[in-house]
Amino acid sequence: MNSSKEKLSLLRSLMKQEKIDAYIIPLTDPHLGEYVPEHWRIIAWLTGFTGSAANVVITDSFAGLWTDSRYFIQAEKELADSGFELVKLIIPHTPEYITWIKENVKDAGNVAVNGNVISIGLVMLMENEFENKQIVLSTTIDLISDLWNDRPANTVSLAFEHQIQFAGKDRAEKLSDVREYMQKIDVQYHLLTAIDDIMWLLNIRGNDLKYSPLLTCYAIVGVDQVLLFVDEERIPPNLCIEFDKQNIVMLPYEETPFILETLSTDSSLLITPSTTSATLYKSIPQGMKIFEDLSLPTRLKAIKNSTEVENIKRVMVKDGVALTKFFYWLEENIGKMNINEISAAEKLLEFRSLQEYFLGPSFSTIAAFNEHGASPHYSSSINTNVNLITPGIFLLDSGGQYLDGTTDITRTISLGDSSDRQKTDFTLALKGTINLAMAKFPKGTRGYQLDILARKALWDNGLNYGHGTGHGVGYCLNVHEGPQSIGTGASGDLKTILEPGMLISDEPAIYREGEYGFRTENLVLCVEDEKNNFGQFLKFETVSLCYIDTLLIDKSVLTEDEIDWLNAYHKMVSERLSLFLTESENRWLILKTAPIFFKEIIENEI
Amino acid sequence: MNSSKEKLSLLRSLMKQEKIDAYIIPLTDPHLGEYVPEHWRIIAWLTGFTGSAANVVITDSFAGLWTDSRYFIQAEKELADSGFELVKLIIPHTPEYITWIKENVKDAGNVAVNGNVISIGLVMLMENEFENKQIVLSTTIDLISDLWNDRPANTVSLAFEHQIQFAGKDRAEKLSDVREYMQKIDVQYHLLTAIDDIMWLLNIRGNDLKYSPLLTCYAIVGVDQVLLFVDEERIPPNLCIEFDKQNIVMLPYEETPFILETLSTDSSLLITPSTTSATLYKSIPQGMKIFEDLSLPTRLKAIKNSTEVENIKRVMVKDGVALTKFFYWLEENIGKMNINEISAAEKLLEFRSLQEYFLGPSFSTIAAFNEHGASPHYSSSINTNVNLITPGIFLLDSGGQYLDGTTDITRTISLGDSSDRQKTDFTLALKGTINLAMAKFPKGTRGYQLDILARKALWDNGLNYGHGTGHGVGYCLNVHEGPQSIGTGASGDLKTILEPGMLISDEPAIYREGEYGFRTENLVLCVEDEKNNFGQFLKFETVSLCYIDTLLIDKSVLTEDEIDWLNAYHKMVSERLSLFLTESENRWLILKTAPIFFKEIIENEI
Repeated sequence: MNSSKEKLSLLRSLMKQEKIDAYIIPLTDPHLGEYVPEHWRIIAWLTGFTGSAANVVITDSFAGLWTDSRYFIQAEKELADSGFELVKLIIPHTPEYITWIKENVKDAGNVAVNGNVISIGLVMLMENEFENKQIVLSTTIDLISDLWNDRPANTVSLAFEHQIQFAGKDRAEKLSDVREYMQKIDVQYHLLTAIDDIMWLLNIRGNDLKYSPLLTCYAIVGVDQVLLFVDEERIPPNLCIEFDKQNIVMLPYEETPFILETLSTDSSLLITPSTTSATLYKSIPQGMKIFEDLSLPTRLKAIKNSTEVENIKRVMVKDGVALTKFFYWLEENIGKMNINEISAAEKLLEFRSLQEYFLGPSFSTIAAFNEHGASPHYSSSINTNVNLITPGIFLLDSGGQYLDGTTDITRTISLGDSSDRQKTDFTLALKGTINLAMAKFPKGTRGYQLDILARKALWDNGLNYGHGTGHGVGYCLNVHEGPQSIGTGASGDLKTILEPGMLISDEPAIYREGEYGFRTENLVLCVEDEKNNFGQFLKFETVSLCYIDTLLIDKSVLTEDEIDWLNAYHKMVSERLSLFLTESENRWLILKTAPIFFKEIIENEI
Repeated sequence: MNSSKEKLSLLRSLMKQEKIDAYIIPLTDPHLGEYVPEHWRIIAWLTGFTGSAANVVITDSFAGLWTDSRYFIQAEKELADSGFELVKLIIPHTPEYITWIKENVKDAGNVAVNGNVISIGLVMLMENEFENKQIVLSTTIDLISDLWNDRPANTVSLAFEHQIQFAGKDRAEKLSDVREYMQKIDVQYHLLTAIDDIMWLLNIRGNDLKYSPLLTCYAIVGVDQVLLFVDEERIPPNLCIEFDKQNIVMLPYEETPFILETLSTDSSLLITPSTTSATLYKSIPQGMKIFEDLSLPTRLKAIKNSTEVENIKRVMVKDGVALTKFFYWLEENIGKMNINEISAAEKLLEFRSLQEYFLGPSFSTIAAFNEHGASPHYSSSINTNVNLITPGIFLLDSGGQYLDGTTDITRTISLGDSSDRQKTDFTLALKGTINLAMAKFPKGTRGYQLDILARKALWDNGLNYGHGTGHGVGYCLNVHEGPQSIGTGASGDLKTILEPGMLISDEPAIYREGEYGFRTENLVLCVEDEKNNFGQFLKFETVSLCYIDTLLIDKSVLTEDEIDWLNAYHKMVSERLSLFLTESENRWLILKTAPIFFKEIIENEI
């Protein structure tokens, strides 16, 4: 294989031939979801950068890779000698490269991108930005396919039904919910491009992607028919019969744009600009009325139904048992045998695999020792792998896909002595996790209004973290799922309110580059609290179950309320998990979850 | 004068003649600012509602007045028997009436509004909303002028120069700042429609409006000329000479649309859609490139210069002295003489009038006894006025316009015994004032991120208030000034970050309808805090100076940090004001600002 520099030089000669002044390469596939299959990981192949979020822009004199603060450390290493320069995003997840192009491409210059892997939302934004300088944006030029000889093929798995005992609601009911809303806003067709939306709506799953149980397909929901664009041999016969009953018609995946072209121009179509590729969008017949909004399945699936909620609580027990068994094993064996970041992650996977309905990890495990923990999205590889030794700090962010739910949890533990500053740092970030978990707020509150609860203790001490505080979590679907989130609001949707049934992560953190990172992450479920003259109040119920390492806690930094929360949480962890642990594991967990006391401090002071 | 019902019936017959299905009447004037001169207070004349924010929509079967929760109680009273129904806004300051029109006017119906008093921003929003139902919006129909016989004339005052000792920056420098930015974004003209923007830019003031020292005018800033649309006799000769030197050309006010029409279509124009009337917008020549954004003076004047900051701190002493003298006088005289809401407000005005550079109140004083305090924007009138008696709760929200700054402050005091619930309520809201004042946050933070600091103690107890937490404050200009604000983010600008030099109010509250209202409001100045590896941090400096009534405080509800803040604040109040108070006032203030202690509580408990 050629080096990055050679590929870059080949690309530049193609650009010259095609008279392209700037070529954009996003890190996305035609469905514009978060997890990008190998076939579409052009940026990794081209630049060597293996992170999950980036955009590349190439001109004749510059080749830049834009990514956010989670990846600054990693990108600097991986891009060394690649010919590509790291451009640090000021605001995460924003297309700051567009401004760069606008400022650096000459008037009436030509910019190109493969329209299959960029959203129409972004294309419209660019067209608007470029208008002033008469820069032309082409979305029909794919310079990569011819260059990339050993390109991996797309994975093609078989669909399976997501049984009603897991899904809680059958597809007829879900379709009727979606159609009811379509009627309300007067649209006859709804184009679904986000794969997880289609999985949820049709109660199916697949295995095309590494961390999410998805089957690559498109769908158009009509008033009494669903067109499902997936190759028929991927749907098992029992499902085909069910689909037939509900008038779900299968058509080849490649035909999506051609069928779109045939829709009646007298009708209306609901699309989501952020997940609809420019190529697909341009197949919509002229004259058809287009409504742009979040997809209906995105809205509906964010609010977990009662079966899902019950299952989520059960899945948290299973996941907590696996984690507890792992941490017990780690403490028993560290120093006695070689344990490194990779083998630790494998051991954890082993414990999770023993749990009922487990499908696989929900994302690439972050098993990070000491300074590796300072990269929020660190992924250990043979090049970076180190042994876990005493003393040290071990950050473990992992999750599982189960038929009955998806988990995502982070714990940071002390492997032996920790410094006072480490304890203060850990506890300040933990205060954030606790204060967000304790929030009570009126219905109508948006995620960004709660963000400071997770950051306040850090901000008060001149500290901060460069990522969001909480993301929605799918149900046997993507571990990152919208539309809700908790963050600063600098990027992302600012309209979605928090509603009962939403599952969301709570993960404040602190990172000291070159030293360590601390993060305590739980999933919390939004539930109802009191209703009075001032309105309906909501709160969170923490559902993740795993002890929090009290060895890292500086009690003097916690308030009495925070200590009460921690003790109550630990009591719940120990009670819910004990049935599934061995006697020695239980004895150990009782020590790990023993209450800590606030009074001591005050008594000592007086 | 006819009754509201008669006027409504006349309006409906005019609507029938003109074939109008719904007629919209906004509470705005052609400059779309907050303070609306009597000439434009159509809603008060028509419906009897005297609040400051409303929209009226009339159809043949319905006449509704949309306003926000601040005015629910007041509107219900004032609209009784008017023929108009109160429609409660769900989200304050949003045009929810548009949705109502969309749902209630028939397909292809006709909606009309006077384009002089509605922003092009709202008109575009409506046109977009109505498109689907082919509802036609006309902006050229004024049904009011012919009906309103005894309509008050516009006030026409004389301009005066806002001296450099107050303004801190001369108009040449301000013009050069604005033009520098215009060049950067490549626009040749900047239309200024918000009067306070023009006052700030040209360092002039006037007396056309009741509470803001403004002179009604428009302006177009060009590359080397300013067109100022104001009748020349309103500008005194010395100012005319100065304007001439800086190529500021005066043109009659009425000519604004006609001159706009003559601008070169080869050039670009920056306008602010929210303050540009539809009528004015439609005078912009077709083909001219239009940039829509906040006006540059709006951005620039929000960040107070060092002279302004110094003056603001001095003005706070003067304002604090007036308030302290007033509260001392009140406590000395209550029970001895008749004091009512109106006479109390007049007495306060008397004390303010004695201060140097005082121009007048910055808004209609809210002097509210007991249940009147539950209307956040209560204004006492001969119909509602009551005596202040003991025991009782007195809420006083007032402010002054001074040449060297604008103030806005609320205190609630106990006139004798208060109940435990009153003390808890007062203290929970006060915790909000204090916690926002103590905030520390990284540069880049937006107001909505801090809002919960003001609400958390209330939310934790199932309480809330239905208005924003903080608004920007002008400098010898409007007491409500954008673009910064602190609120839930449900309405308003979500992009503006808080920057050093911004002045903003901090006014959480609690209202118990029919009982009382509590609000403690200070102005805070955004200033720099530490800069470290995690970035530049900012904080607030509380600048308002007046004691907070500790008789209303339930100490058990406050944390030690909050008590420390209060004691430090009281120390500052007493130190900064003492020089300007009499001996007896000082003795009294020392008692009012005496420190309260946290320890007592804990010691009692142990």
